[in-house]
Amino acid sequence: MITTEQIDRWLREDIGHHDVTNQVPGETIGRLVAKEPGVAAGIDAARAVFDYLNVDVREPIGDGTAIEPGDELLSVEGAAREVLRGERVAVNLAGHASGIATRTRRVVEEARTESADVRIAATRKTTPGLRGLEKRAVVAGGGDSHRLDLSHMVMVKDNHIAEMGLEGAISHFQERTSFATKIDVEVETVGDAPRAGAAGADIILLDNMTPAETREAVDRLHEAGHDDVLAEASGGITIETVADYAATGVDIISMGSLTHSAPSLDLSFRTGV
Amino acid sequence: MITTEQIDRWLREDIGHHDVTNQVPGETIGRLVAKEPGVAAGIDAARAVFDYLNVDVREPIGDGTAIEPGDELLSVEGAAREVLRGERVAVNLAGHASGIATRTRRVVEEARTESADVRIAATRKTTPGLRGLEKRAVVAGGGDSHRLDLSHMVMVKDNHIAEMGLEGAISHFQERTSFATKIDVEVETVGDAPRAGAAGADIILLDNMTPAETREAVDRLHEAGHDDVLAEASGGITIETVADYAATGVDIISMGSLTHSAPSLDLSFRTGV
Amino acid sequence: MITTEQIDRWLREDIGHHDVTNQVPGETIGRLVAKEPGVAAGIDAARAVFDYLNVDVREPIGDGTAIEPGDELLSVEGAAREVLRGERVAVNLAGHASGIATRTRRVVEEARTESADVRIAATRKTTPGLRGLEKRAVVAGGGDSHRLDLSHMVMVKDNHIAEMGLEGAISHFQERTSFATKIDVEVETVGDAPRAGAAGADIILLDNMTPAETREAVDRLHEAGHDDVLAEASGGITIETVADYAATGVDIISMGSLTHSAPSLDLSFRTGV
Amino acid sequence: MITTEQIDRWLREDIGHHDVTNQVPGETIGRLVAKEPGVAAGIDAARAVFDYLNVDVREPIGDGTAIEPGDELLSVEGAAREVLRGERVAVNLAGHASGIATRTRRVVEEARTESADVRIAATRKTTPGLRGLEKRAVVAGGGDSHRLDLSHMVMVKDNHIAEMGLEGAISHFQERTSFATKIDVEVETVGDAPRAGAAGADIILLDNMTPAETREAVDRLHEAGHDDVLAEASGGITIETVADYAATGVDIISMGSLTHSAPSLDLSFRTGV
Amino acid sequence: MITTEQIDRWLREDIGHHDVTNQVPGETIGRLVAKEPGVAAGIDAARAVFDYLNVDVREPIGDGTAIEPGDELLSVEGAAREVLRGERVAVNLAGHASGIATRTRRVVEEARTESADVRIAATRKTTPGLRGLEKRAVVAGGGDSHRLDLSHMVMVKDNHIAEMGLEGAISHFQERTSFATKIDVEVETVGDAPRAGAAGADIILLDNMTPAETREAVDRLHEAGHDDVLAEASGGITIETVADYAATGVDIISMGSLTHSAPSLDLSFRTGV
Amino acid sequence: MITTEQIDRWLREDIGHHDVTNQVPGETIGRLVAKEPGVAAGIDAARAVFDYLNVDVREPIGDGTAIEPGDELLSVEGAAREVLRGERVAVNLAGHASGIATRTRRVVEEARTESADVRIAATRKTTPGLRGLEKRAVVAGGGDSHRLDLSHMVMVKDNHIAEMGLEGAISHFQERTSFATKIDVEVETVGDAPRAGAAGADIILLDNMTPAETREAVDRLHEAGHDDVLAEASGGITIETVADYAATGVDIISMGSLTHSAPSLDLSFRTGV
Repeated sequence: MITTEQIDRWLREDIGHHDVTNQVPGETIGRLVAKEPGVAAGIDAARAVFDYLNVDVREPIGDGTAIEPGDELLSVEGAAREVLRGERVAVNLAGHASGIATRTRRVVEEARTESADVRIAATRKTTPGLRGLEKRAVVAGGGDSHRLDLSHMVMVKDNHIAEMGLEGAISHFQERTSFATKIDVEVETVGDAPRAGAAGADIILLDNMTPAETREAVDRLHEAGHDDVLAEASGGITIETVADYAATGVDIISMGSLTHSAPSLDLSFRTGV
Repeated sequence: MITTEQIDRWLREDIGHHDVTNQVPGETIGRLVAKEPGVAAGIDAARAVFDYLNVDVREPIGDGTAIEPGDELLSVEGAAREVLRGERVAVNLAGHASGIATRTRRVVEEARTESADVRIAATRKTTPGLRGLEKRAVVAGGGDSHRLDLSHMVMVKDNHIAEMGLEGAISHFQERTSFATKIDVEVETVGDAPRAGAAGADIILLDNMTPAETREAVDRLHEAGHDDVLAEASGGITIETVADYAATGVDIISMGSLTHSAPSLDLSFRTGV
Repeated sequence: MITTEQIDRWLREDIGHHDVTNQVPGETIGRLVAKEPGVAAGIDAARAVFDYLNVDVREPIGDGTAIEPGDELLSVEGAAREVLRGERVAVNLAGHASGIATRTRRVVEEARTESADVRIAATRKTTPGLRGLEKRAVVAGGGDSHRLDLSHMVMVKDNHIAEMGLEGAISHFQERTSFATKIDVEVETVGDAPRAGAAGADIILLDNMTPAETREAVDRLHEAGHDDVLAEASGGITIETVADYAATGVDIISMGSLTHSAPSLDLSFRTGV
Repeated sequence: MITTEQIDRWLREDIGHHDVTNQVPGETIGRLVAKEPGVAAGIDAARAVFDYLNVDVREPIGDGTAIEPGDELLSVEGAAREVLRGERVAVNLAGHASGIATRTRRVVEEARTESADVRIAATRKTTPGLRGLEKRAVVAGGGDSHRLDLSHMVMVKDNHIAEMGLEGAISHFQERTSFATKIDVEVETVGDAPRAGAAGADIILLDNMTPAETREAVDRLHEAGHDDVLAEASGGITIETVADYAATGVDIISMGSLTHSAPSLDLSFRTGV
Repeated sequence: MITTEQIDRWLREDIGHHDVTNQVPGETIGRLVAKEPGVAAGIDAARAVFDYLNVDVREPIGDGTAIEPGDELLSVEGAAREVLRGERVAVNLAGHASGIATRTRRVVEEARTESADVRIAATRKTTPGLRGLEKRAVVAGGGDSHRLDLSHMVMVKDNHIAEMGLEGAISHFQERTSFATKIDVEVETVGDAPRAGAAGADIILLDNMTPAETREAVDRLHEAGHDDVLAEASGGITIETVADYAATGVDIISMGSLTHSAPSLDLSFRTGV
Repeated sequence: MITTEQIDRWLREDIGHHDVTNQVPGETIGRLVAKEPGVAAGIDAARAVFDYLNVDVREPIGDGTAIEPGDELLSVEGAAREVLRGERVAVNLAGHASGIATRTRRVVEEARTESADVRIAATRKTTPGLRGLEKRAVVAGGGDSHRLDLSHMVMVKDNHIAEMGLEGAISHFQERTSFATKIDVEVETVGDAPRAGAAGADIILLDNMTPAETREAVDRLHEAGHDDVLAEASGGITIETVADYAATGVDIISMGSLTHSAPSLDLSFRTGV
């Protein structure tokens, strides 16, 4: 959810102490329109900006809707001064989120060429201040949010394993973790995958492996009977290589680029009749 | 500048209510390292995160420094728990800002093939909450911040001109604007450029023109003797076309993509000896 | 973690606009001391208050430590004015959190009389503004945090089931939930427990059942082969009845009273030598 | 009063970055209902949460109203998604405040068995972040808020007296205190009570005395003619001993347990028709 | 006290998104120096700004110190960039507060020509956001803070009296007010003063009366034996008329102009050796 | 613009934790009325306070309107409790801003006796937290906002010139400053004015010069052909001397006293019919 505090901050950041160009009398209407094809996201955030300014919002489309050039994402009606004040922040939010949703959908479609059900997931590599907006945009594009913050899921990392050993680290965190929280264990060799499964991992992150290594790790997991353990591939996977990873039988492919490197979707805001 | 309020918010967003994986005793060191070549930015922001956590920061490089894979952007030493808490936010900030600086430098270099002094400027299409970080990153990359907020410079836009006429709108804002503030007038036809210059514009934004139209508008401005008026090109200009615009003699080329579509620069944070 | 924003707010709330009684010159020491036996928690929060005021904190004990009357939880040294300013907020935080940890440990001990491994878990019935502090206090007392917020784990509730049916609701959320997130399904009859297990629940919440019903539901789950599904009892369970529920074989017993009704632990702050 | 900043924080704390269970279309109604008898408080706070979410609030009862199981404290109507988002925070606030009001009323009733007009007062031992809510809940239960913050009333404490002497400390603060502010002087012996009265105390806090000592101090005050000086008993007084203190003729009995140890009142929120 | 949140806000407000003039390397010293005679106040606030920026503060003088042109209020040493960033905010705070303290001292001195002990008090007419700073500045100048906020002291106003009658209104608030809180009753006729005293007012505000009327009201209070009730004059009193009011025997003279109309004291900040 | 965060803070500051005097049932109307002649400003801020409290605001006059005693600045209608809560903050804001606008208009009128077009400008000497309100009030009074923050316009100061030389400093900042930003150069001798003009200053600040020196500097600038460079006088200019400076031909006269020393305009808020 978008809070009043966030909108306060975003508007203040964009307007400054004394803006003269928006001192426009009267009422106006405005429309948020796509200039290129993609997937809509961040509509709730754009809407919240106008709600804050007491501008009426009409017919917002749902996050995840496929859009074509000329399509309207929402329209507004209200005091011209307030519409103009909100316009830039609303476009920046929706453009940023829709860019992430659009990129996610393309990656998902690419992965679908090799796997009907692999999940394409984001990471914690999000823009500071916009974690929620970006994670929801990934979901809007057909992706998986992955863990939302450090408290959501335990990731057992190489530094934990270096200190306590693989089984030791898993056991350490099982004792300290709520039943509500899953444990994802990062492994760097094919042989560690079934060991992590045996030790109680819910998910096994196959880090920086080639597709061939990934496939072997997945196979080793199945051979060891850990069918209920999820396998996740991560590390340097791009839209060019995602299908190769999808073909390995892995359950999840996580990619930081979904959130940190998606170009904004080109949207424009048109005021007046 | 990065405020305590921002760091509060960013850390809280990433950590959540109960993180067990960072409950690590003892001290550690950490290094922020480049994994691909680019231009550093956001170093002050990364540093501020660690300062907040009472972690010592050493040898931060300056914003704008060219970096190669393996180069260190800063190193830290402090309580392991605090280093681990700050790591992700610091990397996300520096990676995001360095991505913008890197993209900006590439665009500037491309423009330099045709013009020794054209300025490559950002716009207000920045990520909500990160206006300052992103504008400073553009400057780190050799670009120009353009106006920082609505109050910094007056932009006379098509809707103002539709209502008051070109000269009327300029005159309207000259009366309402501080002597400290410049006036940038958006024109859509070549013929309007010298009119705006005559009416007192400090800068004339040539909106959505082809390179040929842009060149003609620049020439018309010079012919009319407005050598002290700056000409700015904007609208759909990409790294592929920026040199064509640079060749027109325009003073400024502004591009939203510097901030809203630059991929993050790949950085990693390495802890332990 | 405790943020600067929280400490700002708490101190401002307690001090007001013009406090004359703390205008004391010189340095002082202070000690946070237990007046009754219990379990320490909230020490990090108390410490953060004094850190904010630039008062040195020494020898803080760890959360979860058993304490007896006269035991010291932490000591401080610094400007008398700052020590006095922080004292009340620090005591209120540590007393509140330690009260929760103490209550939790008593409930856990009671449950241990019948079960060696049942988890005693908190709920979302926490004091607004103190979710993290209270959840960490439950853990300090030997309890389980349960889900930290609505986004941490999906709870399929009666209203969802009323609308979509038991299997329908589970399937609905499986499609919309990250692989990182568990699904806990609330059932109100013994017969629904194995149905929920078959439909893919990670945890089954047996709501407002008697111990006998709870035991039957647990047995039915085992009979149906859902040994990997956790059973959770909840609803009106008190320290008087917790052992009866522990004896049913349930995996988790969740009780709102751990956080919303634990009396504060009696602590005092002693200044001067 | 409850501020937007507080509600922002409380909702964000409970919802997290991506909640899927409340994505419910349509409108709903909801009712906040008592499950046990008590005294209502915190209704304004619960209402403010729903106001923030643009949910209509109807027929809120007044703070201080006696309630029985099944009684409705308020009802709401609005978008199901927003009702569900606000529900837990609203219940937690009203349950917490009503628990304090209920506890206060019981203590007041107990004291009334021995005194028609003794005031039962809270202290500064409140939950950080909720000072106002809790003080108002004490008043709703028939108690007295006592001082609201350090600036509201001067408390002359043992450390002041140790440094400046009883009369010296009182004189010191009379010179530094506004005419708008009362002075409450903590004494530890019966003989100090009339001395403090003579020195100008508005209230005399009889700290950690037995009922017999308290009665003697009150008598000594009257004998010395200080009928306009209020006598306050404090320190370890419980609901079991409050009547004994009430019988001493003291004007005020202050108890930290009203706020820091009152169990929450059991309330439930019922949605749908 | 000055909070981190306030300093965050004040610095952000003054610096904006990208300041190039303070990008100065190296260390510097700075001195806050008086350019005109007056009374120092706000030193803690100025100091807190530099503390926030990790600049060392030395030899701050105490609030209430009389200063002459050339006197140093504090000196600093630290990174030049941080010193320059804090300079303007620190000067604005100290100049504003010292202006209030200086104005207050002048008014107090004027009143002292006719009364040895009348208190010169501020009102709630303070600058939004700076209530505490301004009240403390009044005290630094030898004045009285008066009530700090609506909750600090009850003011029974004309609208209450119109509705409930004089005695009714006093009785109404006595029942609803903590023992910790004084009651100040606003009267508009001389005859109402003894009535208010008889009804239990702690202070009687003689509103908009001439000095002669004020004297008569004071006399009537004494005649009626209400020597323990304080008399306060308010309404349109200026430095020109304050001595006339002081001569009436009134206990308190309150003046909004102390805070809302005091000119800033002229201070300068000098950097470099 | 006034943000929700500001209003939250201002109301909380004035109300405190438990205000009993505003617990008034029913509806009321209220009117904000001038008690002395002046110029209105801060009306938007006063209005925002009542909007926040869900009180209807009617017929607000525009900032900059000349007002006479008895004139109404705005009227409100709503719940009596909310009207009373907002009253003091609204009056304080509008009184403060209107005082600045009124002072500005008087200074402007004084300057008009000698110059038809000199601009009377504020400085950065504003009240921390109220930069925007005060700058907009100066504009409402017919003045010029001058630079809004450090990022709005570059001021080349004596310390820069001492380090880099006059031309060196100007050149240094031209390279580091956006095309959107003007450069104002502070000079201390008449001879430096044309040098600064030749080096590219947009504005030349003639610091602490007499009117005669100022006139000579202006003449020297014109003689050197720098007709497009603005001349600004600053330093110790008062309403008594402003006309002398206006007569020098300078373009701008900047005065800190417009914002830091303007007395509040006397306004009252009248409730009830």
